[in-house]
Amino acid sequence: MASCSVTLAGGKLAVGRRMPGRCHRGTAVRVSAAAPEARKRPEYIPNRIDDPNYVRIFDTTLRDGEQSPGATLTSKEKLEIAKKLSQLGVDIIEAGFPIASPDDFEAVRAIAMDVGNAVDADGYVPVICGLSRTRDKDLETAWEAVRHAKLPRVHTFIATSEIHMKYKLRMTPDQVIENAVNAVKHLRSMGCNDIEFSPEDAGRSDPAFLYEILGEVIKAGATTLNIPDTTGWTLPHEFQSLIAKIKANTPGADNVIISTHCQNDLGLSTANSLAGAMGGARQIECTINGIGERAGNASLEEVVMAIALRGKEQMGGLWTGIRPVHISAASKMVSDYSGMIVQPHKAIVGANAFAHESGIHQDGMLKNRDTYEIMSPETIGLSRADEAGIVLGKHSGRNALNTRLTQLGFELPEDQLNDVFRRFKNLADRKKNITDEDVLALVNDEVHQPTVVWVLEDLQVVCGSMGMPTATVRMRGPDGISRISSGIGSGPVDAAYKAVDALVRVQAELVDYSVNSVTEGIEALANTRVVIRPAGKMAGEGYVDSYKGGKTQRSFSGSGADEDIVVSSARAYVSALNKMISYISAKSAAAVAATSSVDGSSQEAVAA
Amino acid sequence: MASCSVTLAGGKLAVGRRMPGRCHRGTAVRVSAAAPEARKRPEYIPNRIDDPNYVRIFDTTLRDGEQSPGATLTSKEKLEIAKKLSQLGVDIIEAGFPIASPDDFEAVRAIAMDVGNAVDADGYVPVICGLSRTRDKDLETAWEAVRHAKLPRVHTFIATSEIHMKYKLRMTPDQVIENAVNAVKHLRSMGCNDIEFSPEDAGRSDPAFLYEILGEVIKAGATTLNIPDTTGWTLPHEFQSLIAKIKANTPGADNVIISTHCQNDLGLSTANSLAGAMGGARQIECTINGIGERAGNASLEEVVMAIALRGKEQMGGLWTGIRPVHISAASKMVSDYSGMIVQPHKAIVGANAFAHESGIHQDGMLKNRDTYEIMSPETIGLSRADEAGIVLGKHSGRNALNTRLTQLGFELPEDQLNDVFRRFKNLADRKKNITDEDVLALVNDEVHQPTVVWVLEDLQVVCGSMGMPTATVRMRGPDGISRISSGIGSGPVDAAYKAVDALVRVQAELVDYSVNSVTEGIEALANTRVVIRPAGKMAGEGYVDSYKGGKTQRSFSGSGADEDIVVSSARAYVSALNKMISYISAKSAAAVAATSSVDGSSQEAVAA
Repeated sequence: MASCSVTLAGGKLAVGRRMPGRCHRGTAVRVSAAAPEARKRPEYIPNRIDDPNYVRIFDTTLRDGEQSPGATLTSKEKLEIAKKLSQLGVDIIEAGFPIASPDDFEAVRAIAMDVGNAVDADGYVPVICGLSRTRDKDLETAWEAVRHAKLPRVHTFIATSEIHMKYKLRMTPDQVIENAVNAVKHLRSMGCNDIEFSPEDAGRSDPAFLYEILGEVIKAGATTLNIPDTTGWTLPHEFQSLIAKIKANTPGADNVIISTHCQNDLGLSTANSLAGAMGGARQIECTINGIGERAGNASLEEVVMAIALRGKEQMGGLWTGIRPVHISAASKMVSDYSGMIVQPHKAIVGANAFAHESGIHQDGMLKNRDTYEIMSPETIGLSRADEAGIVLGKHSGRNALNTRLTQLGFELPEDQLNDVFRRFKNLADRKKNITDEDVLALVNDEVHQPTVVWVLEDLQVVCGSMGMPTATVRMRGPDGISRISSGIGSGPVDAAYKAVDALVRVQAELVDYSVNSVTEGIEALANTRVVIRPAGKMAGEGYVDSYKGGKTQRSFSGSGADEDIVVSSARAYVSALNKMISYISAKSAAAVAATSSVDGSSQEAVAA
Repeated sequence: MASCSVTLAGGKLAVGRRMPGRCHRGTAVRVSAAAPEARKRPEYIPNRIDDPNYVRIFDTTLRDGEQSPGATLTSKEKLEIAKKLSQLGVDIIEAGFPIASPDDFEAVRAIAMDVGNAVDADGYVPVICGLSRTRDKDLETAWEAVRHAKLPRVHTFIATSEIHMKYKLRMTPDQVIENAVNAVKHLRSMGCNDIEFSPEDAGRSDPAFLYEILGEVIKAGATTLNIPDTTGWTLPHEFQSLIAKIKANTPGADNVIISTHCQNDLGLSTANSLAGAMGGARQIECTINGIGERAGNASLEEVVMAIALRGKEQMGGLWTGIRPVHISAASKMVSDYSGMIVQPHKAIVGANAFAHESGIHQDGMLKNRDTYEIMSPETIGLSRADEAGIVLGKHSGRNALNTRLTQLGFELPEDQLNDVFRRFKNLADRKKNITDEDVLALVNDEVHQPTVVWVLEDLQVVCGSMGMPTATVRMRGPDGISRISSGIGSGPVDAAYKAVDALVRVQAELVDYSVNSVTEGIEALANTRVVIRPAGKMAGEGYVDSYKGGKTQRSFSGSGADEDIVVSSARAYVSALNKMISYISAKSAAAVAATSSVDGSSQEAVAA
């Protein structure tokens, strides 16, 4: 991220004004990218779109994306991401899989109540969707979670390929149809009128059977049919033809929306999604940064920008309602919260995506400005901090910081602002110019800590190539008492973690550890991220039921920012430990007292 | 990388035997992926392929990939990567841009002489290619660099779009044709019979002009025509049609090979490359991990695996000569040497690509084995260290280590083996099981240090949240004398760097800094990577002429591995500094005494 020293700017800053500087390119082809903002999206009706060229964007970052190993998000983080998705103008937010755990249920319900009711001046509000298997209990839990949204949707699914039906479901094709139809009817009976159905592993299903089951669920009341390329196996021309055939051969297909859901195992998910739209799909399922299991899903930013730039000329006029100026901020937020890093050469949102001219002589750059770029960094909300006219430094006051935070899209309560300001002043003493990246790192570190169980108060380390690395920590526990402990390790971070372990006394295994400097220069903040999972006696506690039929052990990420890499590492570790402890105690609590809508029997299903 | 605890294995280990364990999936569709190995590739003739379905793989990791910001590779690293590309079975290796600098020239020449003459038992040897503008001096330098290879090629290019011709080249279309034709003729006159020509920005060029200039260069003797999607702007169906039209309308196109070169700005480079092949292209240009400027190029591993898995059924029988079992090792090597990290959800080579079952209950996994996977990790050379039967630990001797190194593809000279063994024993004292990842990190750290100018001997640090981080270093300089210095910084790493700076006294700016733990658990090695560029008075020294007409400031990466994160950070910094110092002093030396084939005037061009 440092190579171009680009920094994030909130939508307000970047929209409507062009800033001078070397990150900017010509305008020839850019107008089309910004055009969708001016266009009013068609009114939302579940089973039809009045503009034949409008493509709905269905974001599943919070459901499919969160299933990436280590990407576990807290409810607070999920809500923040949902708000950002709403700023982006996503048509449908798949907020989670409510039956998976009480935590998932609560997160979906909170998003439905808050983001799902925040209608903007244009009348836009995102549909809030919850995933569900075809079992009654699942469906009821999902509906209960989303029903308070202005536009609630339930997405149910069952596998339709021979191999899945035979070995995973142990059902006959007729039983599978009956199951799917009953699920849709059960949803209708509860008052749910926006129903999405996915035939899992559609690409390997018998086409005739696919047309039959899809026809039956349409009759039962489904409004969107989603066609997943579950293994990322199809090529674009093949997927386009599959969608076109389903549209042509499924009875009633003209009265519903066809959707794509493309995995990225061969690196083709963006192309397949676009091909699906060219084949007649009018909903594309995708995630921010393309995160998800294995090689992930189609990237929202790639799909949206390809349609924005080429939809008119090459895809018969297709367009979306996405406001691309929020892409960069959404990408950063999802990467920060999920711990799923974005490689420097990632299309659209990678650190180098707009950095090819880095260091190129100004003359040459100016001459070339129009020749190598197809969109400007401002289109997706990138701008250079030092040209935004606002430079924060050691003489900046609380107001200046708060103004900048507001511009970056954060409204902090008094006490959090005070904490951030205290650390800001600390940093400003050591670093001349405080960039937006620095400010964002401080805010994320301060605001997005999970429920605090243990607090790291002080840390001291001696290390080097000659000695035995030794760390001393002082931590305040859940009982409010501060205790001191020391540890000796193979390195300073190991020593600090051993000292923390001696106080916290939960068994965790470190799955991943990484550090990035937030801004140029090593005097900058170091941003550390760790992923841990329960170990030893606690290992069983981290299991959740996976919707794919197995059990998945949850892992927990934590991040910390500090000028001292050992301190930031310790903060990250404590943050992940807190997240893990909260999750496990919530699970234990829930196993006793069920939430309002989820009774004891479904809890058993979750814990089974 | 830690989430599935998969580790690299050399080809020998993974080929031919299947290992049990949870990283393995069913075999139903895998046979086709392995099939190309058994097939003998057609004899190499520059302008034709006797099998109409064979697609040549042209790897440009060392040329286009190396142009990524911070990805600068040393000559030694380039040679190692070229050897790995040859193991992979790449048809053509674009080894560099010889006129760019004496260093680039020497790297290409070394690869041509070594890898370009290592014919294997099947008669395979890669073509070694050098890039060149159309100027005589450029062409002569490129030819001089590659001509010692068994199969030498020169790749020359000129822009053909109106905007490029008018503003960048300031030439009329007729002048551009004349230039291109003269370049091809000049190459022929020197004895070069394998000539590739690229019309830069082909996608935005007037089609009629494109057919004309391509027809003229064919007449002049070009044997491969490469069609770049320079800005990553086209959609797959559009690119397929462009290739088909060029084949249909260019006089003489049937007697040459058409090639694709797709940038990834919209995330479509893999799909576009495949579409190009379906349109008639029989060479695909790509890079390992998809690295390159901006959003990079088509990924070799994605293109190759898509053709291996779907070529027969969906692409009319297309196939390549790549041996996919070396993909994983090649990906790791390129990521390590270039510093261009691969995101966890990168298709094929990301840490999660085969990790979706992480933690899934064994029963569920076994039931699902065939249902979610389209290839096995072994196909690309991944295997689990703990199942490979070899576990290294504190009781392992020098022989055991050497045996494992050989299996991993390393043949170390005596002194390097001793160094690695010493550090291995050190690590084994602290860590119970030494994995392949650990061994690879030690080797890379030890073997791939650039020419050593400064040596970090000892380091000691005191830091923490309470104090002023202070570091003391002892370093041996180029004069062989050890000196001690201390520094105070904002954190322990900053303090260490300040202490190093006080001794080394060159001005460098830190562009990027990152740390990853090599294996699970924090007691593991920390692998630190830094990217720096010359600053202050030295800034001008780092400029090289870019083939795109501007100047590019080189940056330099360094890496270090140690159990102590501060020590690994200092090692990485010193390694990058050594690389930068060597590069700049080589440039200064070359400006005085030109190499055998590059005379003073072309040096001026480079330095201009």
